[in-house]
Amino acid sequence: MPDTAPDTAPDDPSLTAYGQLAQHFARIGRIRNALGILGWDKDVMMPAGAGDSRAESIATLNVLCHEMLTDPAVETLLEQAHAPAGSWEAANLAEMRRAYLHAASVPADLVEATSRAASRCEMAWREARRDSDFAMLLPYLSEVLDRTRELAQAKGAALGLAPYDALLDQYDPGTRRTDIDPVFAELRRDLPALIADARAHQAALPASALPAGPFPMHRQEAVGRQVMQALGFDMARGRLDVSIHPFCGGAEDDVRITTRYDENDVLNALMGVVHETGHALYEQGLPPAWHTQPVGQARGMSLHESQSLLMEMQVARSRPFIDWLAPLLRNAFGGDDSDPAWSAESLYHAVTRVRPGFIRVDADEVTYPAHVLVRYQLETALIDGSLALRDLPEAFNAGIFNLLGLTVPNDRLGCLQDIHWPSGAWGYFPTYTMGAILAAQLRQAAFDADPAIGAGIARGDFAPLLDWLRTHVHSQASRLSTPEIIRAATGAAPSTASYRAHLRRRYCGAA
Amino acid sequence: MPDTAPDTAPDDPSLTAYGQLAQHFARIGRIRNALGILGWDKDVMMPAGAGDSRAESIATLNVLCHEMLTDPAVETLLEQAHAPAGSWEAANLAEMRRAYLHAASVPADLVEATSRAASRCEMAWREARRDSDFAMLLPYLSEVLDRTRELAQAKGAALGLAPYDALLDQYDPGTRRTDIDPVFAELRRDLPALIADARAHQAALPASALPAGPFPMHRQEAVGRQVMQALGFDMARGRLDVSIHPFCGGAEDDVRITTRYDENDVLNALMGVVHETGHALYEQGLPPAWHTQPVGQARGMSLHESQSLLMEMQVARSRPFIDWLAPLLRNAFGGDDSDPAWSAESLYHAVTRVRPGFIRVDADEVTYPAHVLVRYQLETALIDGSLALRDLPEAFNAGIFNLLGLTVPNDRLGCLQDIHWPSGAWGYFPTYTMGAILAAQLRQAAFDADPAIGAGIARGDFAPLLDWLRTHVHSQASRLSTPEIIRAATGAAPSTASYRAHLRRRYCGAA
Repeated sequence: MPDTAPDTAPDDPSLTAYGQLAQHFARIGRIRNALGILGWDKDVMMPAGAGDSRAESIATLNVLCHEMLTDPAVETLLEQAHAPAGSWEAANLAEMRRAYLHAASVPADLVEATSRAASRCEMAWREARRDSDFAMLLPYLSEVLDRTRELAQAKGAALGLAPYDALLDQYDPGTRRTDIDPVFAELRRDLPALIADARAHQAALPASALPAGPFPMHRQEAVGRQVMQALGFDMARGRLDVSIHPFCGGAEDDVRITTRYDENDVLNALMGVVHETGHALYEQGLPPAWHTQPVGQARGMSLHESQSLLMEMQVARSRPFIDWLAPLLRNAFGGDDSDPAWSAESLYHAVTRVRPGFIRVDADEVTYPAHVLVRYQLETALIDGSLALRDLPEAFNAGIFNLLGLTVPNDRLGCLQDIHWPSGAWGYFPTYTMGAILAAQLRQAAFDADPAIGAGIARGDFAPLLDWLRTHVHSQASRLSTPEIIRAATGAAPSTASYRAHLRRRYCGAA
Repeated sequence: MPDTAPDTAPDDPSLTAYGQLAQHFARIGRIRNALGILGWDKDVMMPAGAGDSRAESIATLNVLCHEMLTDPAVETLLEQAHAPAGSWEAANLAEMRRAYLHAASVPADLVEATSRAASRCEMAWREARRDSDFAMLLPYLSEVLDRTRELAQAKGAALGLAPYDALLDQYDPGTRRTDIDPVFAELRRDLPALIADARAHQAALPASALPAGPFPMHRQEAVGRQVMQALGFDMARGRLDVSIHPFCGGAEDDVRITTRYDENDVLNALMGVVHETGHALYEQGLPPAWHTQPVGQARGMSLHESQSLLMEMQVARSRPFIDWLAPLLRNAFGGDDSDPAWSAESLYHAVTRVRPGFIRVDADEVTYPAHVLVRYQLETALIDGSLALRDLPEAFNAGIFNLLGLTVPNDRLGCLQDIHWPSGAWGYFPTYTMGAILAAQLRQAAFDADPAIGAGIARGDFAPLLDWLRTHVHSQASRLSTPEIIRAATGAAPSTASYRAHLRRRYCGAA
């Protein structure tokens, strides 16, 4: 190492190159932990007047991480460092390299221009969405798209990837369009028939009504805590709080989830808690020895979403889970067990209701992928230039009509509804549906591997399931790629088979 | 600037030397803000299992600040930079220099050895205090004292100060033993008679009883919020929460105070809220333009404590304040206004009761300085070597007997009660009583300057008082030294005159 290296660079020359890198990345990891808490605090605790100064503090720490990551000494050490093939250390080096390339491949002024364009566009988007005014957003979004395409080019060149794959790689390391395209093509083909069958099946069921509220917030919270602890959440290493948009954040040994309560709805906040608990169990199950290292982080957003959807969609919206939950809810809210509204059957119908709609985040399990398929098709076309941004609303509405049979009445209910594109998060959408697919595949493999896993759910015993996930997913962190983790866990490459079977079984009465 | 300077050093050579320093220190300020929130979270929100990883994150950010502060480029720039005499910029440069000298004068291994010795000693102290076992603590405390004396030597040499003054300068920039000694000598001479007179005066008063509880926590909190907002606390730039030990922390535009509630006591938590609100008003009143710069910080612990004690002791424990507060409390807790326990007189007697005791933090306003005088005398003697550490318990007990007439029964109630020495905070104790003295002097000057200030208190109108403090204390930040701020605000050098007159008036019935 040159003796002019800054103090914040790897600085103990008595260590091996790998050891110096590990020390350096641990330091970055400590700062990222701090950022995790500051971000949580911003959304949960911070008084309104502190917005600007908090943004400055967060930006300063992000710049420090970026400087430490792109320090020239890191490149030199990455060239020198080695570790036995197949070891955690080797996987860690690969992740360090990936992080370094992602950070160092983009010129600082492009990073800044992209971030500034996104900030401006996000602000414009809030107005544009309110007024359903795509034309107003167009110049801002155009700037974000241009910068994102440059960024994708730069990262792609450094990583040896096509531009869209380089964006995808930010959220889902190792996943490529060639992994997604065949899966989504299959879904696109089958989805309209599946939705039609599910709705016909639903129409033939007896009518049911949900219990009437109000359901006091503190009781909903108590049930939420009871359920998240039953699922395996460690309260000594995490928290449950309230925020406008539910999320899972925090830091190592301090995983914090949030939900929001509607006193007229007995299930929504709880399903949100279960979803975020799925994310949190993944974070709490990452191997402690690698907490501060790149290889010790969760593998990517598809696998992360698979963990939340496994808990929410595969487990909590299943009939055995609802059979366990129903008496717990009646007990919490003084429900009468002779009232049909409080029956497990009625609650189960409520959490599995299918109804095509315009808003992605309100969509049910069956129609949700339609929203993602449309966005994926459009963002890949926008990035490769085959779709012009001004034609986005028309293309969006056509996509929704084709898959859901709905005519989008305005852009607020159409292409203006999501913050992802305005905020610069291109390449993120497919991870939602890839997550749903992986969740089904993992759940099936777990049930097949150990009958106690499925049998436990109706008794509220989730320990066998969590054990299986700990062993096959959580403890793997980023040692393998997502497809490798899936293959090792399920014995097969990622595929839609379990997912489609699950949907047919739950929603169409298939065996 | 050498072109080998690290990225985290002042790095825009197109700026003046001063401009580069300001940019560099702003960055350090942003990290300190982050540390403020992380520290608050640790004591208020953090789950127990996150202690170790949080400590690592905080340590990493502290080390970063220290590295940035002692960057060789800082020394060079400090030599080159200049600003017009008397300007804020000149004061800022002086504060930068002071911060640099404090940080750079101590070798890194001594910083680390001191911090390690203090961590070990703090842990030992928890056991030693519990078991009242000074002998057990002795080797650990001896190590801390040795390191602290080395540190005081090193800082003193760099700052041109005697060792104890160098320690003092960490907490109270510019204050020296020569400022404290005459003041404390006067107090030492007068205190025993004052305490005797106060107790005689109190014994002659009619008996009174406080209202019986319970006082539900959420109502106490509501009253606390009402009072802190009346005093001028800006809720859009701060919070009130609960912690084991009340404190004022957080960051710029985000000042967070805490208290703890006892459902059997109607006044304790509230007086704590008022005390911390005094600290918080100082922080919220610092000049926004200088928030991230050294000159923009609060001047020191004596002046900080003067602001909390001005609100708690001078204002909230005064009869006019209690006259305003009494109906507010009766209203909050359903108190009967014909019940003598709820009368302003009874509440006033409760908040001004004098009773010598062993524990400093439980002491009343009159006997509190005795605890500080003893500790100051002992820590100066320990630092200059004229007292041997093994003789501390005996010397401590003699000091308490001389000033309070109490025989300390064991070291748990004696020299083991405070965390300051074990944790390495030597030179801190005198700031408590210096703060009490300055509070009285400032309160008197404010009342003399504007009759509306005193008159407002009985009506719950604290705006005139806050205006005066904003102008004469808060907005000055660290532009002047503490004695200079006091002289400009009160027209006189710091003195005990107002303080002694206040105590005689309130506690001995003097005119």
